[in-house]
Amino acid sequence: MIKIFDLTDVISIKDFQKKDIQYILKKAENLEKVAKSEEYSDELAGKILGMMFFEPSTRTRLSFETGMKRLGGSCVGFDGSVASSVSKGENLADTSKMFEAYSDALVIRHDLEGVAKFISDIVDVPVINAGDGAGQHPTQTLLDIYTIKRRFDKIKDLNIALVGDLKYGRTVHSLAYALGMFDVQMSFVAPDELKMPKETLHDLEKDNVKFYQTNNLKDVIDDVDVLYVTRIQKERFPDEEEYSKIKGAYLINHHLIKGKDLIVMHPLPRVGEISTDVDNTKYNKYFEQAFYGVPVRMAILKNIIKNKI
Amino acid sequence: MIKIFDLTDVISIKDFQKKDIQYILKKAENLEKVAKSEEYSDELAGKILGMMFFEPSTRTRLSFETGMKRLGGSCVGFDGSVASSVSKGENLADTSKMFEAYSDALVIRHDLEGVAKFISDIVDVPVINAGDGAGQHPTQTLLDIYTIKRRFDKIKDLNIALVGDLKYGRTVHSLAYALGMFDVQMSFVAPDELKMPKETLHDLEKDNVKFYQTNNLKDVIDDVDVLYVTRIQKERFPDEEEYSKIKGAYLINHHLIKGKDLIVMHPLPRVGEISTDVDNTKYNKYFEQAFYGVPVRMAILKNIIKNKI
Amino acid sequence: MIKIFDLTDVISIKDFQKKDIQYILKKAENLEKVAKSEEYSDELAGKILGMMFFEPSTRTRLSFETGMKRLGGSCVGFDGSVASSVSKGENLADTSKMFEAYSDALVIRHDLEGVAKFISDIVDVPVINAGDGAGQHPTQTLLDIYTIKRRFDKIKDLNIALVGDLKYGRTVHSLAYALGMFDVQMSFVAPDELKMPKETLHDLEKDNVKFYQTNNLKDVIDDVDVLYVTRIQKERFPDEEEYSKIKGAYLINHHLIKGKDLIVMHPLPRVGEISTDVDNTKYNKYFEQAFYGVPVRMAILKNIIKNKI
Repeated sequence: MIKIFDLTDVISIKDFQKKDIQYILKKAENLEKVAKSEEYSDELAGKILGMMFFEPSTRTRLSFETGMKRLGGSCVGFDGSVASSVSKGENLADTSKMFEAYSDALVIRHDLEGVAKFISDIVDVPVINAGDGAGQHPTQTLLDIYTIKRRFDKIKDLNIALVGDLKYGRTVHSLAYALGMFDVQMSFVAPDELKMPKETLHDLEKDNVKFYQTNNLKDVIDDVDVLYVTRIQKERFPDEEEYSKIKGAYLINHHLIKGKDLIVMHPLPRVGEISTDVDNTKYNKYFEQAFYGVPVRMAILKNIIKNKI
Repeated sequence: MIKIFDLTDVISIKDFQKKDIQYILKKAENLEKVAKSEEYSDELAGKILGMMFFEPSTRTRLSFETGMKRLGGSCVGFDGSVASSVSKGENLADTSKMFEAYSDALVIRHDLEGVAKFISDIVDVPVINAGDGAGQHPTQTLLDIYTIKRRFDKIKDLNIALVGDLKYGRTVHSLAYALGMFDVQMSFVAPDELKMPKETLHDLEKDNVKFYQTNNLKDVIDDVDVLYVTRIQKERFPDEEEYSKIKGAYLINHHLIKGKDLIVMHPLPRVGEISTDVDNTKYNKYFEQAFYGVPVRMAILKNIIKNKI
Repeated sequence: MIKIFDLTDVISIKDFQKKDIQYILKKAENLEKVAKSEEYSDELAGKILGMMFFEPSTRTRLSFETGMKRLGGSCVGFDGSVASSVSKGENLADTSKMFEAYSDALVIRHDLEGVAKFISDIVDVPVINAGDGAGQHPTQTLLDIYTIKRRFDKIKDLNIALVGDLKYGRTVHSLAYALGMFDVQMSFVAPDELKMPKETLHDLEKDNVKFYQTNNLKDVIDDVDVLYVTRIQKERFPDEEEYSKIKGAYLINHHLIKGKDLIVMHPLPRVGEISTDVDNTKYNKYFEQAFYGVPVRMAILKNIIKNKI
């Protein structure tokens, strides 16, 4: 029996218990028709979402906006383009108090870890962290898990491989943590330079989460249900040649996965990690995954924006 | 008897049959009161228009937004300012699939010919071309024709002069093509350097469309019902002097048209082609023309956005 | 008995009679619940506010947008970021006629004095001046007065000190003028370089408004009900040292006001004029003041946007 979701802010996936995640997954499913405009809702009519995007993020921003508008609400704010940024010289606290005065909830994107938490401590409206630097991006994790749930109708007992840059990738740390609650087998596939950090592994071990590490995609490709691919950034490597070699070794293309029983996911944007010859196959779940950002964020918005009438 | 409009995308005016144009003209007229907020509509409540403006275009963008919002709908996207553009490095197809996931229809503005068509082939939502480089801008053509229809209550049997840069002007090529369906007399008034391209003339001849060419505005000024003026860009000329001479010869001012029975149109923005002494005269139809972008685009939006409820 | 508000444009606070101000104060109070989304309204559903922000102003822009959206309306336009600005080369009149065609009212922010008035003379929709350079910003003045009214339940018989840059500060000139209608005692506290201009003082004297001038905050601090603080800009001083000295002398901190019976206001953004140790005290009214921009602007919008249905 799923209880009521009682988080007032959505700052870190670590604030979520398993029941909270399950609650959001359930609610998101109910909202899919609204997200596709196959059903009409004006549940958030008159409500305003404050968009504080200190750095750009098209997919995250647009899916929050679409989610809010599909529920009849509106958005105000700035979009992270250099030119749109806030009043020169104003401190973050004052800017946040301003948004608090004009909104029913805030979505914050910032390149510094901890900013969303800082803001949630000084405003009285709910705050959603839409990515704070190397920190957290909890709604991305929720939509990732939702994508898996929608495909397999369960999360438990799946073999999920996280592939690519597991060292710096904010997304994969949160995802590994959250999947750890669901009794899955995880495989971490990364070049030696970009392995999952020891702290993350240690946390998983403490929680008795099973995982396997390798730098060779071939080791796991026959057994996995999910290939979760992330971007490998050029800047992480000392020279171009090393980067090209690694990139080639982790490229997902149709040839590699043909005949296997798996899905391919990616938080997007991709820059060459998945060949376009996967796009029109049954393996491709990354476009659907992007769509699922809408119902998942709608579920969050519906639950944290208070009805004060 | 006007049949149902059955285009799913609006890419090129060449996809329109005469009956399609007539259908939009009729529907636009019915929507004028809503466009002026003299009547209320929420027919597109809950619907979202994705705005993919890869280059700026204030008039086109705002009239689409106003049209969508007058019908109760919402917009998401980017506006073509450098800073607002999409995620670095993401390919156009992936960006389009993202917008497909978040919208009920897409409006695309791009500086490369063929982009709107390319996108319409890979997404399942309707696509409207809002200008693709040297290519097409079909809703501009529709609002141009609508302006003529509203003034004369017919299009047939009018003498319509297209004036200015007829070589590079995207607008005039589409307009000439579309007017060709309506049994009008066309005059093409341009300096020798900027004459209507041979291919366009050839197409018109094939369809038995009557036209007359001149480089002298005086040749036609006494006979025309419509002076459709376009911008002559400095960059088209090797030297400043030549440009100034040409610009002067094609300047429309009150003195030139006083006492004649004609209207002056311009897709706007103008940069000196029409003197401001025409603004407060009965000849000025260019401001109304800009307004007509709203009901015409509303008619398009209403007809291509599917009701899935 | 308050009469109907009959201004069609909101250009200058000098166009307001006392009864007009009282009318807006009254109406704003009725709208506070809607501004906080404790009550629902769709009174401006289908209406569109054109936002012509030629320079950025986050607080003013967002509070107009929030106000419009809380009433069910929508906004279109540009936000003053360099990149978002209008079509290259188009004159202001043509841009304004475009916005007239797409909106039910216009909000204009420009760095040149007189622009809002100029535009209001050429368009047929209501125009609101949201700040024109050194000129007027009437809705700021209205929300300032509203803040005082909400705290003291009157304006009359209060002692109100305007502090800081009284020479260049657009806000304080309008506020002094408007407060002059309400039988208050005003104190003007400024360094000698930044004193209230002679013309403003002369206007007040003509209207028999009582005021007192000093460059020493201590002279008034025991007697005032309101400390209205404004920014002192570095650029106003020949050297850094002089600036630092002045800034220090006018800094409002908790120590200075502790035990007094007064409120601190500021149009925001502040850049160091008020110490953050005032933020969590009863003296702080500047955050509420920012919120009051919403109901006050809603009252204006409701009254100038014509119902044409």
